[in-house]
Amino acid sequence: MTDSATHPTTLDVVGIGNALVDVLTHETEEFIEANGLVKGAMTLVDTDRAEELYAAMGAGIEVSGGSAANTVSGIASFGGRAGYIGRVFDDQLGAVFAHDMRSTGVAFRAAPAVEGPPTGRCLIVVTPDAQRTMNTYLGSSEFFGPEHVDSELIAEAKVTFLEGYLFDRPEAKEAYWKASRVAHDAGRLVALTLSDTFCVERHRDAWRDLVADQVDILFANEHEALALYEVDTFDEALAAARADVHVAALTRGPAGSVVVRDDELVEVDPHPVEVVDTTGAGDLYAAGFLFGFTHDRPLAECGRLGSIAASAVLGHTGARPGVSLGQLITPLGF
Amino acid sequence: MTDSATHPTTLDVVGIGNALVDVLTHETEEFIEANGLVKGAMTLVDTDRAEELYAAMGAGIEVSGGSAANTVSGIASFGGRAGYIGRVFDDQLGAVFAHDMRSTGVAFRAAPAVEGPPTGRCLIVVTPDAQRTMNTYLGSSEFFGPEHVDSELIAEAKVTFLEGYLFDRPEAKEAYWKASRVAHDAGRLVALTLSDTFCVERHRDAWRDLVADQVDILFANEHEALALYEVDTFDEALAAARADVHVAALTRGPAGSVVVRDDELVEVDPHPVEVVDTTGAGDLYAAGFLFGFTHDRPLAECGRLGSIAASAVLGHTGARPGVSLGQLITPLGF
Repeated sequence: MTDSATHPTTLDVVGIGNALVDVLTHETEEFIEANGLVKGAMTLVDTDRAEELYAAMGAGIEVSGGSAANTVSGIASFGGRAGYIGRVFDDQLGAVFAHDMRSTGVAFRAAPAVEGPPTGRCLIVVTPDAQRTMNTYLGSSEFFGPEHVDSELIAEAKVTFLEGYLFDRPEAKEAYWKASRVAHDAGRLVALTLSDTFCVERHRDAWRDLVADQVDILFANEHEALALYEVDTFDEALAAARADVHVAALTRGPAGSVVVRDDELVEVDPHPVEVVDTTGAGDLYAAGFLFGFTHDRPLAECGRLGSIAASAVLGHTGARPGVSLGQLITPLGF
Repeated sequence: MTDSATHPTTLDVVGIGNALVDVLTHETEEFIEANGLVKGAMTLVDTDRAEELYAAMGAGIEVSGGSAANTVSGIASFGGRAGYIGRVFDDQLGAVFAHDMRSTGVAFRAAPAVEGPPTGRCLIVVTPDAQRTMNTYLGSSEFFGPEHVDSELIAEAKVTFLEGYLFDRPEAKEAYWKASRVAHDAGRLVALTLSDTFCVERHRDAWRDLVADQVDILFANEHEALALYEVDTFDEALAAARADVHVAALTRGPAGSVVVRDDELVEVDPHPVEVVDTTGAGDLYAAGFLFGFTHDRPLAECGRLGSIAASAVLGHTGARPGVSLGQLITPLGF
């Protein structure tokens, strides 16, 4: 990694990921079983399966989603300068996605696709335990490749943030390598979130290569970190991550998180909230952490900002905060 | 009105109205002023104005809406048998609207339009006082006319429920007279909600004719009732309504409601709730009342069911309850 930027940045963070609109419904545990869903995971579904599942789901709400998109919209909500790279189609849901990004202040410059499948969506079933089970119809995001990597936007940002979910296709892997090289050539940093245990297991070797070679800041929950390094304990995973990357933030759900930077280690408490829906909690944790990090706040404050941002979506249905995160943290002394 | 049905019914209530998807955002009082909005009212907007306003609004959530649609989906959520007549286009938002109706158990049989404007939407700005200000782009609902009145569905339902919002165009007025006659010819009842003070003032004479000639059950809030009868006090409005219709339910916001049937009068308390967003509160009040009414519950219980149903949407953002209303009332002894 390179520590100093060669040109001034105009953005704090640019995110790359699957551009999705979430469709959320509250269902019972029986619904998960009856429809053969993998609870708590993200499963890719084709058109037929998406239609079948949508027909089985109750009346829902639609909210712009996408993991990295949630993160950068959270950074913008804190008052940070954020950009996004992802692929929507020229349809109603694509217009909703683009509106929600731009209205939050996120630079989202890509023109919508005019050929191929419609804008992707994520069918999210929230169970009474507040756990979310995701079924993603990728739609236009399926054809994201290196040609969609906006090198100018990446060179403008202090940190390029990559979501793990996009990593399922060879073209997307190529895109991530390209984006990482562009970022480093411009003297910037690369952050990655592992996103999902199953995704890590499907592509472990490819992840390990990318993390070791290109990633400066790693986000993962405990399960994802154990899966990546094929170890049995949190401490082993943490040690492995510290050998690979400069900065790591490992989240442990209700037990908070552990954040490290080189020799520094801080244990971070969760921010108190009555949990309604865990959708987007990890994405918003990354938003808070990266907002603090790109504003040169001490490591402990970066972690605390992550906890606060996560709490802003844990208390309601959906992955985008209903309040300005900047206004939320002012009374907390930030 | 006719008191006894000539054929058995298969539905409790069929609703007719503007089929809309709501787009909700939380904004400041300054936003209302800066954008020249009529606070608390429903204003019809054309395509250009809708786009201008949407661009000014922050990131939102999309939820199926439409006043009568909210009412019948509430009735279905109570476990009642409901149908809906309204016009969507064959697009993504039309599919969302249809899904949300059918998945709640509402009979919604009309095929989507394949020519003309897209599915309508209602841009709803919620201010910190929980008041909602609505700007409706009618889209495909603009061309609703008597040819869209499904006489079979109406003849199947104990009550045909008409929303005032649809009453702005001559073809829609014709549709309401047609629907009312079909209902009465089949020995059924007609219910109407006045929806909006401005709508009442725009079409007062036409409303007065319809109410006096065709309406059996009238829903209105205090302001709408005063506007309809051009009187200054609630008691005068109540007396005028009692002269016109068999049953009336007049709501008074946080002061609850007054319900009358012929010589009977009951004052109904509101159901306690911390109010977040008033969108849909009147629609759900009608749902609770009509569910009780079509299940032959005493008048006071009909009013109480109205208050409970309204409370189920007052506590969150959006006009559709996030919980099963049937499950909600079981512990309350219904």
